[in-house]
Amino acid sequence: MRFVKGHGTENDFVLLPDPDGAIELTPRLVAALCDRRAGIGADGVLRVVRAKASGDPAGESQAGAAEWFMDYRNADGSLAEMCGNGIRVYARYLIDAGLAAPGEWPVATRGGLRTVTAPAAGDVSVDMGPPEILGAGVAGVAGRTYSGLRVSMGNPHLACMIDEPVAGLDLSRPPQVDAAAFPDGVNVEFYRLTGAHGIAMRVHERGSGETRSCGTGAVAAAAAAAVEATGAPAPAGEWAVAVPGGTVIVAFDGVTSHLRGPAVLVAQGEIRPDLLGSG
Amino acid sequence: MRFVKGHGTENDFVLLPDPDGAIELTPRLVAALCDRRAGIGADGVLRVVRAKASGDPAGESQAGAAEWFMDYRNADGSLAEMCGNGIRVYARYLIDAGLAAPGEWPVATRGGLRTVTAPAAGDVSVDMGPPEILGAGVAGVAGRTYSGLRVSMGNPHLACMIDEPVAGLDLSRPPQVDAAAFPDGVNVEFYRLTGAHGIAMRVHERGSGETRSCGTGAVAAAAAAAVEATGAPAPAGEWAVAVPGGTVIVAFDGVTSHLRGPAVLVAQGEIRPDLLGSG
Repeated sequence: MRFVKGHGTENDFVLLPDPDGAIELTPRLVAALCDRRAGIGADGVLRVVRAKASGDPAGESQAGAAEWFMDYRNADGSLAEMCGNGIRVYARYLIDAGLAAPGEWPVATRGGLRTVTAPAAGDVSVDMGPPEILGAGVAGVAGRTYSGLRVSMGNPHLACMIDEPVAGLDLSRPPQVDAAAFPDGVNVEFYRLTGAHGIAMRVHERGSGETRSCGTGAVAAAAAAAVEATGAPAPAGEWAVAVPGGTVIVAFDGVTSHLRGPAVLVAQGEIRPDLLGSG
Repeated sequence: MRFVKGHGTENDFVLLPDPDGAIELTPRLVAALCDRRAGIGADGVLRVVRAKASGDPAGESQAGAAEWFMDYRNADGSLAEMCGNGIRVYARYLIDAGLAAPGEWPVATRGGLRTVTAPAAGDVSVDMGPPEILGAGVAGVAGRTYSGLRVSMGNPHLACMIDEPVAGLDLSRPPQVDAAAFPDGVNVEFYRLTGAHGIAMRVHERGSGETRSCGTGAVAAAAAAAVEATGAPAPAGEWAVAVPGGTVIVAFDGVTSHLRGPAVLVAQGEIRPDLLGSG
């Protein structure tokens, strides 16, 4: 089984080239691939499959609009709708493998069509949709309470501006939030202004703990920063978001948001699926 | 640059096939390869090089006795002498790649010649040398004190027998030991008897924290168990050692010790060293 290993700001993926839909991707295989010691190791798996051949209702229903379907799975084997860093790495692979031309085109995901902009080399951008600012919220960390803005990116976020360096926060445990306000859980971002259009951010993702990067979290935090720091009613302009795994650029144009940043393929090869997980 | 990913009881390695010594292996490259998100990810790198072509004094000086030199590097890029799980994975690669015949042969390491026994398929065994029982010692964990035996396997160990399940110990911090008794630090094993010739073990390695497996630690703990549980003056017999990453077999024959267990190669391919660590 062929594979490619790649990452976007250290949010890393095992890509499985499967243009014609030949791979039977079980939760067990996904978990074995993502095992960082007995497998390859990754935050998730991206099966690269033509929408019409995906064998997935979400892919097949979008086959008229997009050639490729991002079949994204979390490291535990569960299905996922979208991943802002994952889709950028996915697009980089399509171009490097000669399966798509540099430019702007839609990719089918379980969260719907997403438009990527991918040059022949370098950073890849993806349309993340409009952030929705929902109102105020609070999070507790180590006995302190931080206020922020609730933001929906399709998934729920709470983005809290802080005055001290983000490196000082203890995010080894989930921040405490009002469960009634976040019935589906919440991803919590803490960010500090580092310039007129720059923030440093750390994120605690529901179900995953602290991560090195989070695409929707970067957009949510930049949106909150744009609104809180500028007093504007809606996010605007371009923001540099420094996360532990690197830096991404978030741009707001009044209609939608774009996430731009590195998408790097570091290795490719062959896996022995029959040997994964043995030990 | 070609690579192979493999592990022995989840002690995992990036192998770099370099039979003729063409690779310049810098600490920076090793650390980038071992980075679990921006690289391939591993506990260490095994450069597979002919002893005479190794460009390493340790390898060249043993070229008359062994064809192959295990150039082992820790994940931080530093040199290492020997690794009981690493050399078993190294031997599995040599056979699978057709570079050595199944059987018993010496491998040159920075710790000297080590004899491996590797069949065409399945578990690989390595002569780990005689354990040296040095006397009693104590370790403190979470306010409790555990007594054990100090054992030298070339590197220092303290193996403590406990009555409760090993899973209950908090090894998130280094066990407290008498620094004067262990001037070079110490690897601390906690083991529980699970049968007449079986133990369950966890290990805290100096410099690494808790690990999924440790070859010298398994031998040290089995030696301590053999002496403590049987009252014999020297370790004897064959012991099954269950570690978090799997199970290894430790055998004592009155002269030396052997470590036997799984050595699995899960993937192979090509790395883009120029892209490692970028992000």
